[in-house]
Amino acid sequence: MKIAIYGYGNLGKGVECAVMQNADMELFGIFTRRPVEDIKPVGENVKVYPAKDVLLYKNEIDVMIICGGSATDLPVMTPALAENFNVIDSFDTHAKIPEHFANVDAAAKKGSNIAIISVGWDPGMFSLNRLYANAILPCGVDYTFWGKGVSQGHSDAIRRIEGVEDARQYTIPVPTALDAVRRGENPVLSAREKHTRECFVVAKEGADKARIENEIKTMPNYFADYDTTVHFISKEELMKHHSGIPHGGLVIRSGKTGQNNENSHIIEYSLKLDSNPEFTASVLAAYARAAFKMKNRGETGCKTVFDIAPADLSALSAEEIRAHML
Amino acid sequence: MKIAIYGYGNLGKGVECAVMQNADMELFGIFTRRPVEDIKPVGENVKVYPAKDVLLYKNEIDVMIICGGSATDLPVMTPALAENFNVIDSFDTHAKIPEHFANVDAAAKKGSNIAIISVGWDPGMFSLNRLYANAILPCGVDYTFWGKGVSQGHSDAIRRIEGVEDARQYTIPVPTALDAVRRGENPVLSAREKHTRECFVVAKEGADKARIENEIKTMPNYFADYDTTVHFISKEELMKHHSGIPHGGLVIRSGKTGQNNENSHIIEYSLKLDSNPEFTASVLAAYARAAFKMKNRGETGCKTVFDIAPADLSALSAEEIRAHML
Repeated sequence: MKIAIYGYGNLGKGVECAVMQNADMELFGIFTRRPVEDIKPVGENVKVYPAKDVLLYKNEIDVMIICGGSATDLPVMTPALAENFNVIDSFDTHAKIPEHFANVDAAAKKGSNIAIISVGWDPGMFSLNRLYANAILPCGVDYTFWGKGVSQGHSDAIRRIEGVEDARQYTIPVPTALDAVRRGENPVLSAREKHTRECFVVAKEGADKARIENEIKTMPNYFADYDTTVHFISKEELMKHHSGIPHGGLVIRSGKTGQNNENSHIIEYSLKLDSNPEFTASVLAAYARAAFKMKNRGETGCKTVFDIAPADLSALSAEEIRAHML
Repeated sequence: MKIAIYGYGNLGKGVECAVMQNADMELFGIFTRRPVEDIKPVGENVKVYPAKDVLLYKNEIDVMIICGGSATDLPVMTPALAENFNVIDSFDTHAKIPEHFANVDAAAKKGSNIAIISVGWDPGMFSLNRLYANAILPCGVDYTFWGKGVSQGHSDAIRRIEGVEDARQYTIPVPTALDAVRRGENPVLSAREKHTRECFVVAKEGADKARIENEIKTMPNYFADYDTTVHFISKEELMKHHSGIPHGGLVIRSGKTGQNNENSHIIEYSLKLDSNPEFTASVLAAYARAAFKMKNRGETGCKTVFDIAPADLSALSAEEIRAHML
């Protein structure tokens, strides 16, 4: 199947690498809004096209993986492209998913295409695990912990403070909270009790570090409700020790069964990721395969990970997965 | 939807409890091959019918959950019942799944019913997690650890030794092996390096304990390839401390992404279960809901967990799960 990438940042690069790992996929090319000569693909002989020309290739691409941002790119791009291509995106603004779904569904149906939105790990694999665990254990409590990992949004928030040259923020689950959840104690946890925030900040020369630290720690929504640690380091240290984009987290459901709910069960799904964008891209590639199979069966409209039968993600046949994975 | 239970051992009891937790399900009754007066259901006013009369109720039952053993019951029961009912079973003889699938598929199609086989946690939720993780990370290694938990098969093997009155065997993952896997070291592990076996044995009066211990530790397939510990305890101690049926385990995929496979990722799914049969029963109940929905859409034939879209397991609407779980 021929996969195209629309947008070439960290996520798009990750998709390019993921396509190379899947023998049944071929990279058609990369579409970009930047000058095509500015794009340096990972692979050799990868074609780069101007985004404005995308419709010229309507009949040559099986699935378009849209690698744009959720704030302003995807709400426009995904419906526009779904009318002409099978598409996948990683839209992650949880509160706006119903609206995005409706827009994409209308466009995909108009063009008789398949669109799969909000694919990745949260939303995505974490959502799936919430759904499975809730269906299996109707009497229970859900917990999601994020990290240890770099939060792009929180890092950006620090960078916007006057006097900050660069910054990296790690979100870290509180070990005692996690242990209590794993023991089945079903604690009620505040934001502060679930996660701590650790910040590595490069201050501009002469900047008031005490003021910067105070602005970080008191920032509403982002940091005020958490125990936050701030470390000032040099630009060199930041590049050397904090240039990766690791992330991960856990989804846990703690539930009860039995005549008198006397038995406890813990279902835990956890991810430890060296590269957040490359893992997200790998999930996108697997769902691109599902989109291709569904389209070939004549299905249309917008889907989410909840609507995709697991077998559709696999390159193996139904017989092979039953014989070797069940 | 009206659920019936066919076979009433630990698993059947678990299904009865699971149905009570699901507001959209109603228990039609229990079918048994034993005298109906020998069955004491957990709930009040639960109807018990002789198994031989099952066809009389063909049009009154939406889904039949078959709670028989994989060795001799299910290979016969599931095809026979699938011709007349939508059915779910927990067939767990991994090597015979293709054959069982073919038999059940033919019967279900003949009767225009849905059958879902091999539902539970392994096969079942563990299989699903192997499939998802393999589709996402094509370059990687799979690990499955079982326990800490009671292995029924190994406990039975000990009970067959002369001089043994009762026994309980726990399968336990080796912590150092598990840690190495979680660190992404991708170790090659022998059976002995992955699990230890701990046995609690009640010897008959006057029995030769040294001989029993030796027979356990040298038993081919079951114990000879593992580091096995044997504790002789009293019948009272066994009942007091080892009467539960806990189990659990982990499925881990350790994979690589990136231009030169430079980034490591660990996907881990783990279960800690106070009651193995009650958890398996809870999975069966969720898949019974899926069978009901699929049948109502006109689908027929044999399915496995790989073929079921996650949304079909949920009692919530597609809109609700998108808004609240994605």
